[in-house]
Amino acid sequence: MCELLGMSANVPTDICFSFSELVRRGGGTGPHRDGWGISFFEGKGCRSFHDPAPSIDSPIADFVCRYPIKSDVVIGHIRHANVGDICLENTQPYIRELWGQYWCFAHNGQMPGIFNAIRQDHIQPVGTTDSEYAFCWLLNAMSKQFDSMPDDTEALARLLRKHAYILSEMGVFNMLLSNSRFLFAYCSTKLYWITRRAPFGEARLRDADVTIDFVRETTPNDIVTVVATEPLTDNETWHKILPGQLCVFEKGDMINLTG
Amino acid sequence: MCELLGMSANVPTDICFSFSELVRRGGGTGPHRDGWGISFFEGKGCRSFHDPAPSIDSPIADFVCRYPIKSDVVIGHIRHANVGDICLENTQPYIRELWGQYWCFAHNGQMPGIFNAIRQDHIQPVGTTDSEYAFCWLLNAMSKQFDSMPDDTEALARLLRKHAYILSEMGVFNMLLSNSRFLFAYCSTKLYWITRRAPFGEARLRDADVTIDFVRETTPNDIVTVVATEPLTDNETWHKILPGQLCVFEKGDMINLTG
Repeated sequence: MCELLGMSANVPTDICFSFSELVRRGGGTGPHRDGWGISFFEGKGCRSFHDPAPSIDSPIADFVCRYPIKSDVVIGHIRHANVGDICLENTQPYIRELWGQYWCFAHNGQMPGIFNAIRQDHIQPVGTTDSEYAFCWLLNAMSKQFDSMPDDTEALARLLRKHAYILSEMGVFNMLLSNSRFLFAYCSTKLYWITRRAPFGEARLRDADVTIDFVRETTPNDIVTVVATEPLTDNETWHKILPGQLCVFEKGDMINLTG
Repeated sequence: MCELLGMSANVPTDICFSFSELVRRGGGTGPHRDGWGISFFEGKGCRSFHDPAPSIDSPIADFVCRYPIKSDVVIGHIRHANVGDICLENTQPYIRELWGQYWCFAHNGQMPGIFNAIRQDHIQPVGTTDSEYAFCWLLNAMSKQFDSMPDDTEALARLLRKHAYILSEMGVFNMLLSNSRFLFAYCSTKLYWITRRAPFGEARLRDADVTIDFVRETTPNDIVTVVATEPLTDNETWHKILPGQLCVFEKGDMINLTG
């Protein structure tokens, strides 16, 4: 299994604190030695760092931990390979363009039957993971349903929830998906979130003796949500997303969707 | 105007020597201060580093210069903005998936009339540059002509040459394009290449007092082609691609195409 990390913020925010925890789990305090990646949305643009090497040994991961990139939405992933070789094209997050927007996706879980169960359309996988296969299928479904990015976010969320449920029936499907504006988080088994806003306090990482005082790092108007497979800190309350639930975050806050 | 850098090699090869020259021109010895990017193909995978900051001041560019990434094909770009704001989504190279392959593209030149002259199809630009617009149009044309990657490389090259010529008629269109296997280089005004193979010698960068002894960096079987807007070294013979000519490189060598 892999681990996911997501962030949504109302002002460009760096994720060095949380990412450093993920990096330690990538072959250090955790078994996810089969590559890692992280994508940063800045406006409509998206830049990614990928490495099939364990994050704990990766000079690129070390650089990203120390170089604060201010971003609106982040999706990160560390891999424990199940399906597909350990190589660059199988390293998440995956990126595709749809409707003139970059879509970024990362997945935790496995769906062994997916290759026989569903067919692809014009958006195709490059690598051989079940995760990328699922991502392409989701985008193809979106592209069939809507000609352009729908104004009705509720309708898009309904479609994503329905398809994510179908995928989760094939195994385990926890996912993060973003188009720079929204961060969609679907839970099949395990996914947690926390929203930090004023009054800010201190947070202490679970796996390392590191604390951060968010009062010193933020302004009173900042709102930042972090989503992760496991809570990253041990002195804050993280919320579990229920199995089958899709949460949507925008500008750091959860948005309410009916249905 | 921008500057391009490309590499094709028959064994995974790092491009630190040539890239360091490009980085110096990005706001140091040259005026290309409006961002930079470089994409590395490793097998079917592609990883990119993008930064809208000048390469000469960019900690990420400094990291890439010092961290040798062994790659089969590389495309790099430094930007002097004409059309489109200086921002991440307008920073080249651009990447899209077509036929289950990543396609990577960078462009030097400008085509002010392109937005009115041609329409897009299902592959759409995210940013606002003429370059990304041209890239999407090329891919849409490829996708209309062929259902999958054609075995007939000659036919693909013919299509690319024809469309590149149409683009060059709108202004200036020097481009590098790759799908991990081939490196296509089209010259509208200015593009040079050099193929290095045994017996290897020393090369000296034009803009800096740096030499490299390729005998120490290579094995006798290595073949490496570098393509650039301007020759990067001053003690080797670079070949100019003729205006209207498309060169195709595979595993470090130019492949002969008729027509």
